[in-house]
Amino acid sequence: MGSKFNAPSLSLLVIALCIFSSPIGKVQSAVSTTTSITVWPQPRILRWPSPQQATLLSPSFTITTNANHHIHLAAAVTRYLRLILTEHHRPLVPPSAVNFSTDTPPLQSLTITIAEPAAPLHHGVDESYSLTIPTTGPANLTAATPWGAIRGLETLSQLVWGNPTRVAVGVYVWDAPIFAHRGITLDTSRNYFPVEDILRMISAMSMNKMNVFHWHITDSQSFPLVVPSEPNLADKGSYGSDMLYSPADVRRIVQFGLDHGVRVLPEIDSPGHTGSWALAYPEIVTCANMFWNPPGGEPLAAEPGTGHLNPLNPKTYTVLKNVINDVTSLFPEPFYHGGADEVVPACWKTDPTVQTFLANNGTLNQLLETFINSTLPYIISLNRTVVYWEDVFVSDQVHVPSTMLPKENVILQTWNNGHNNTKRLVSSGYRTIVSSADFYYLDCGHGEFVGNYSKYDIQSGNQGDGGSWCGPFKSWQLIYNYDITYGLSEDEAKLVLGGEVALWSEQADQTVLDSRLWPRTSAMAESLWSGNRDEKGVKRYAEATDRLNEWRSRMVRRGIGAEPIQPLWCVRNPGMCNDA
Amino acid sequence: MGSKFNAPSLSLLVIALCIFSSPIGKVQSAVSTTTSITVWPQPRILRWPSPQQATLLSPSFTITTNANHHIHLAAAVTRYLRLILTEHHRPLVPPSAVNFSTDTPPLQSLTITIAEPAAPLHHGVDESYSLTIPTTGPANLTAATPWGAIRGLETLSQLVWGNPTRVAVGVYVWDAPIFAHRGITLDTSRNYFPVEDILRMISAMSMNKMNVFHWHITDSQSFPLVVPSEPNLADKGSYGSDMLYSPADVRRIVQFGLDHGVRVLPEIDSPGHTGSWALAYPEIVTCANMFWNPPGGEPLAAEPGTGHLNPLNPKTYTVLKNVINDVTSLFPEPFYHGGADEVVPACWKTDPTVQTFLANNGTLNQLLETFINSTLPYIISLNRTVVYWEDVFVSDQVHVPSTMLPKENVILQTWNNGHNNTKRLVSSGYRTIVSSADFYYLDCGHGEFVGNYSKYDIQSGNQGDGGSWCGPFKSWQLIYNYDITYGLSEDEAKLVLGGEVALWSEQADQTVLDSRLWPRTSAMAESLWSGNRDEKGVKRYAEATDRLNEWRSRMVRRGIGAEPIQPLWCVRNPGMCNDA
Repeated sequence: MGSKFNAPSLSLLVIALCIFSSPIGKVQSAVSTTTSITVWPQPRILRWPSPQQATLLSPSFTITTNANHHIHLAAAVTRYLRLILTEHHRPLVPPSAVNFSTDTPPLQSLTITIAEPAAPLHHGVDESYSLTIPTTGPANLTAATPWGAIRGLETLSQLVWGNPTRVAVGVYVWDAPIFAHRGITLDTSRNYFPVEDILRMISAMSMNKMNVFHWHITDSQSFPLVVPSEPNLADKGSYGSDMLYSPADVRRIVQFGLDHGVRVLPEIDSPGHTGSWALAYPEIVTCANMFWNPPGGEPLAAEPGTGHLNPLNPKTYTVLKNVINDVTSLFPEPFYHGGADEVVPACWKTDPTVQTFLANNGTLNQLLETFINSTLPYIISLNRTVVYWEDVFVSDQVHVPSTMLPKENVILQTWNNGHNNTKRLVSSGYRTIVSSADFYYLDCGHGEFVGNYSKYDIQSGNQGDGGSWCGPFKSWQLIYNYDITYGLSEDEAKLVLGGEVALWSEQADQTVLDSRLWPRTSAMAESLWSGNRDEKGVKRYAEATDRLNEWRSRMVRRGIGAEPIQPLWCVRNPGMCNDA
Repeated sequence: MGSKFNAPSLSLLVIALCIFSSPIGKVQSAVSTTTSITVWPQPRILRWPSPQQATLLSPSFTITTNANHHIHLAAAVTRYLRLILTEHHRPLVPPSAVNFSTDTPPLQSLTITIAEPAAPLHHGVDESYSLTIPTTGPANLTAATPWGAIRGLETLSQLVWGNPTRVAVGVYVWDAPIFAHRGITLDTSRNYFPVEDILRMISAMSMNKMNVFHWHITDSQSFPLVVPSEPNLADKGSYGSDMLYSPADVRRIVQFGLDHGVRVLPEIDSPGHTGSWALAYPEIVTCANMFWNPPGGEPLAAEPGTGHLNPLNPKTYTVLKNVINDVTSLFPEPFYHGGADEVVPACWKTDPTVQTFLANNGTLNQLLETFINSTLPYIISLNRTVVYWEDVFVSDQVHVPSTMLPKENVILQTWNNGHNNTKRLVSSGYRTIVSSADFYYLDCGHGEFVGNYSKYDIQSGNQGDGGSWCGPFKSWQLIYNYDITYGLSEDEAKLVLGGEVALWSEQADQTVLDSRLWPRTSAMAESLWSGNRDEKGVKRYAEATDRLNEWRSRMVRRGIGAEPIQPLWCVRNPGMCNDA
């Protein structure tokens, strides 16, 4: 669950050395130029000795597996077989280093062997795999679990190109992620995303060997999730009947995720970020529909859209527990995200019962403790590990003590203050997911969304950092180079489960989903899968640029609208666009 | 050609006052809330007195015109008739201020009357129009030219919504642009844009009443234009046979532009930005294919991709004049853009003939003078007004005197140094197009495209302004509020023809064309059409936010992938997302 290096077993290494014993000493540990065929994320070990060989892939290529009753693996096999046979990928730069030959017979088949077909797609499941594509004879993919096999199928698909279809041979791959948790947070409340767009995002995540879709479903702006026991919440709190996620939609997304090796982790943010609940239940929401930043007063919310669940109203828990119960039914994922970020005391203080409570020497922290005590045990009782945003523990304004957040049941997600907060959480003993806003927030630096914004009425001078509280824009390089265990001890680093980029949707919807996410998310995907350094320990962003150009192009051909990172000229003229 | 306010004729005002004389004193000069139907860009005068009336639009609605042989107007009429009858626009916020009634008969027809049907779509053509939609009887659109009528049809289309189709009645519009030149610069060299994407951009420009597509066709990275007399240039200098603009493509784009009231202004950038020419003619290009920023030396180009036409080689002019001649044949537009930006002397100095010239007391400026003298008279002889980037006149490194740039034939386009350079150009007597990089460059602040970029290998601390030389990101508000005649005298302001946003394509291609352009370009479109102030002279960005949300949504439904600027919640709760 941390940054440990899972070495391949000795027996696999012996097999690999036997297959690739010639030429001795010419083994490459990485394909490092765009004149070859490359893989994203770079596998931990990819051996394809020079001269790199390729042969045709048979049009009757087949994939067989010992886990042929596994419906999700079967779906993946069907999908990848079709992709491999029909993609006919055309690299941006012809792979001149590859010695393509029709002398060797076409590759006829891949055999997949799974050791533990029943392993569920849970946090920490073994995603390792080994792939061998010999120069003659069938290819072999071995994996501990179906989920590792899905990763291996993706790698195979990237080693296939051309028309007629070619495939790299004489290849050995051993691979496994450095970090177990590699995710995207998507906010579907500020603006709505249709189901098809979410599915496309999941398929792109799978292409990048990512495994967690953290679905920030609800917020103060809208409540798009149809909760069967509380239908009023979406009926009144959504943006409309065409902007809902029905139970059938959720089941479709969850199943699609499983078919792609992607967990779907639901977040029902509370007690803050709940203004939309007030449309159905005004009595359980404080400060709903108030101006977020009243002149002369304290802000009532971190951004426009006010409303906090009232921790003193028993009905809050009746409704919330109904939601929690239904959400855990809809989402089989063993993690449940409870939110708990950005609780703004001034919002609670607008409520008379809260005012009375505070007047009688109650404290703000006690209010949050009441809320946590009234919900966390219930969520745990539903066999869920609870993820909270770090605020619940570190906020200066209102937080609860660690005694109320049992480390065996609670994971904290950090977003503020870079490495400092990561250190703070893990040194307190919490398993931690890193979503540093300074590096992993994909919406930053894209202007302000607040209205009547006079600060942009300027004719010259300082324009700032691009707007938004978290500007500037996070470039793919910034994301790629971020080391999420920087400054941690070895033991502390083990508590870092992984990371998530986040797309908050104040200024995003389906029109820009792909280009905001990709290829910047690919940068994190590789960094968390196999790292951001070469075998000498040097940051490999220069080499990664060439591969990422190629990978971005391939994603586009696969239907993902990833944005370009360079002129095509740079791709075709390696090194010529480098910084001086 | 400047910022003059074209007042409507007295007779039109009288007509308007007669039609809308009741209720006296309740005339609205602008539709200012999202609870009505709004128009983008806001017309100069839009009178729709309260209570605002609407009626059905007849399914057999027709449009007739006295200029029925005008092929471009006919195309526009066909297009708008179809749009009006089939769009069934659904406003984000129901237009509660509009009193829809079926008591009045449906609107049956629009009559278009054109005074000068033969007026060509040239700079400064009269784009004014008047539109009256009475409560009963046919609507009337009068315009001096077909191009003004096309603008009026767009306005009418925005006053139509719903299913069944409703139309605002009791409406009077008088409209005309403040600035005659309202354009987009698109760079199709760094990355290629398919013809279909260019056509979609032009259609979106027309929706925003913009009128100039400044096509930066070629540059050092690629030469995608097929020039009939010099076919080698694209054959060797393009990115490939699937990334070309053939003469037929150009004709299609030009005709599509005319059908939409959009001029297509070609730029063949030279003598700098010509590295791609070297693939066909290495002998006429200095410093081609060299590393752009050699260690220990001077940079050879402003960015990766080197190459300048050699001003001392006669063959340069043979080739370039062939190109110019063919381009003026392909593009009927009377303006021709010659580029002439970012001439980097170090590139010329790599050439032995240049070295000899300079050693014999020749100067850098003389080199550029030779180039201009060898090309500008030729372009002028082809009946073209020549646009150059300001560098040719203001560059510290190399420039030519104003005596060589006759003001009657030359227009300068400013991009550096904000209002200062605008002032410098107009005070020197040049007609000027404003493309301030600090405000109008749409690619800025989106990370660095150069490879091996170590400055993003940071774990904390200052992340700068979002990357790129021109960061930060230019928000729609920044663009909207920019006053392109700021600090100019009245006479100087008359020399400002208008403005262009620019999308340089190092990090853009078809995947992000729409979202990079829209709705930020809409912000400039309104600012240049009817200004950025209300009738009291106050900047109207707050009110514009609501209208731009609505307009962005409508553009999306029309197939333009414009990005969102706010959560839908903000649109539905006017004022609640405002800055404190």
